[in-house]
Amino acid sequence: MDCCVIPLRHGGLSLVQTTDFFYPLVEDPYMMGRIACANVLSDLYAMGITECDNMLMLLSVSQKMNDKERERVMPLMIKGFRDAAEEGGTSVTGGQTVVNPWIIIGGVATVVCQPTDFIMPDSAVPGDVLVLTKPLGTQVAVNAHQWLDMPDKWNKIKLVVSREEVEQAYQEAMFNMATLNRTAAALMHTFNAHAATDITGFGILGHARNLAQQQRSDVAFVIHNLPIIAKMAAISKACGNRFGLLQGTSSETSGGLLICLPREQAARFCAEMKSCRHGPGGPLGQEGAAEGQQAWIIGIVEKGNRCARIIDKPRIIEVPPRGSIGGSQEGGSNNTNTPSPSDIQSTVVN
Amino acid sequence: MDCCVIPLRHGGLSLVQTTDFFYPLVEDPYMMGRIACANVLSDLYAMGITECDNMLMLLSVSQKMNDKERERVMPLMIKGFRDAAEEGGTSVTGGQTVVNPWIIIGGVATVVCQPTDFIMPDSAVPGDVLVLTKPLGTQVAVNAHQWLDMPDKWNKIKLVVSREEVEQAYQEAMFNMATLNRTAAALMHTFNAHAATDITGFGILGHARNLAQQQRSDVAFVIHNLPIIAKMAAISKACGNRFGLLQGTSSETSGGLLICLPREQAARFCAEMKSCRHGPGGPLGQEGAAEGQQAWIIGIVEKGNRCARIIDKPRIIEVPPRGSIGGSQEGGSNNTNTPSPSDIQSTVVN
Repeated sequence: MDCCVIPLRHGGLSLVQTTDFFYPLVEDPYMMGRIACANVLSDLYAMGITECDNMLMLLSVSQKMNDKERERVMPLMIKGFRDAAEEGGTSVTGGQTVVNPWIIIGGVATVVCQPTDFIMPDSAVPGDVLVLTKPLGTQVAVNAHQWLDMPDKWNKIKLVVSREEVEQAYQEAMFNMATLNRTAAALMHTFNAHAATDITGFGILGHARNLAQQQRSDVAFVIHNLPIIAKMAAISKACGNRFGLLQGTSSETSGGLLICLPREQAARFCAEMKSCRHGPGGPLGQEGAAEGQQAWIIGIVEKGNRCARIIDKPRIIEVPPRGSIGGSQEGGSNNTNTPSPSDIQSTVVN
Repeated sequence: MDCCVIPLRHGGLSLVQTTDFFYPLVEDPYMMGRIACANVLSDLYAMGITECDNMLMLLSVSQKMNDKERERVMPLMIKGFRDAAEEGGTSVTGGQTVVNPWIIIGGVATVVCQPTDFIMPDSAVPGDVLVLTKPLGTQVAVNAHQWLDMPDKWNKIKLVVSREEVEQAYQEAMFNMATLNRTAAALMHTFNAHAATDITGFGILGHARNLAQQQRSDVAFVIHNLPIIAKMAAISKACGNRFGLLQGTSSETSGGLLICLPREQAARFCAEMKSCRHGPGGPLGQEGAAEGQQAWIIGIVEKGNRCARIIDKPRIIEVPPRGSIGGSQEGGSNNTNTPSPSDIQSTVVN
């Protein structure tokens, strides 16, 4: 499970808790703070929990930074973390900082819940469909962006992608990683989700397998569609598939939720995701950042042996960055590369 | 405060939580694990909380260790951490591990409490006395032990201490750091403690000052006695006081609790500490390690300006390591260097 759930001595309540910390992977310290916080909260959201009672921040300051660098970078990172926590309806009340060769940022999210507040990730049944709430490809985008300044690496991919496309994909990845999965968590209750997990280090297939293993029914997850930030599939191929993006094993950071939903609810779930305001800037949309988030029906739940697989030749859904021409949220569903949820449903389910 | 206390939405309950992590400071990985866990739990104990609902372990494995070293060291460290958690009546249900240049070990302790379960550290009044539940000098002992193999350093202190004394002091420091403050936390309720904190990185004076600042009454803390692991005061002096041990600023790791107790309760508190079985091996004494723990009345609470100080020429109480001749727990109170609590009380209070 993404969190630990501890029954308490008090009236049927449970303590739900998760921790995560890692090294910076984007250059913008403010966004890095947001991503770290979104990543910690995501484990709660994967259980359909929308509230967080407390957040602790874990930080290590690099001994290799001079005072000036520290003063410029660390407050921004902390601010990003705090802002994302606030967007999640919680606040950072404590934590610990040490000095270390490398920067580390992470946190601990804790909530005390009633049994109806969370959805145990074990109730998928044959006939459910799989929904994914963020596109894949964050690792490829982050790496490709680093390669802009590394001629050896850049030469390998420059035939399939332009510098501008990489820049846009990187911005899109950063935006997605910093987006909370909170709306998806709330909609899991509305649309009767049967199980969910968040997509991080093991890639879509790794996490689908973990989730399949936890199911009480004899089920198998079959993934038909892979929504991927535009051009990242081409980069992965040009690199000889070393990322494993099309195989579902490319690591993601602060990825979307993979949710098992009753078939008849899935399209409405996706439509509702698109109409809710969220993303960095928040459900309140203070920064005007988002008018809704795409979600995709990517596969089905069959009878099976608690395993997961991607079909041969999955359909790659190229998700245009919102910074690109015609790549706005609104434009997305009119693009032949990004079918609407109902298009996908008919592809997958029929 | 040593913990964050978050009021919950559920029936008067509070979430109390703390985190701490640091780098290894003793060579024995098992003991290091115990110390790290004792150190995290200590923040709960300082608030008179005796239970812990959940413990998360935070770990980074050093990239500089080879596979063989990792396999030898890390399981021992984890076992030490888990054993101490078990002694604290809790268990480790999750956490996170990363690879890092340096080893890091720490944790997150969380409990959901009723208001009567914890003692807010703000109710000291003039007339209270200050009790300390572990001797000072852990940093000096750990450093002196490292100097055994560093002739330059050793030459500076060899006139005031023998190698055997350093070895014994190191063992004593390690034992004390690994001892949970849980008995002290329980006795805080029995004897109506008014406030407490645990002694760690800021030294006895630093933490006394922090505690004094939080008091609701106009009080000052005056420290008269410094219980110090035997010979560590002499080492600190021989080093030109660079540790600040006699000034109360020497850093401690997983130190004792500093508790403000009503004057008439303090001697009974110390007596009760001595008669309870605890220490590594636990209140249950499975490992037969301990038959009680000394505590010392070290100062008084006066009317004042929410500050703390150590008197000129404080009385140094040389605490003999239990490994030394005549240094057993039982022998302690017969030794002229370690007055019984009532001796100290009369020194301090009269």
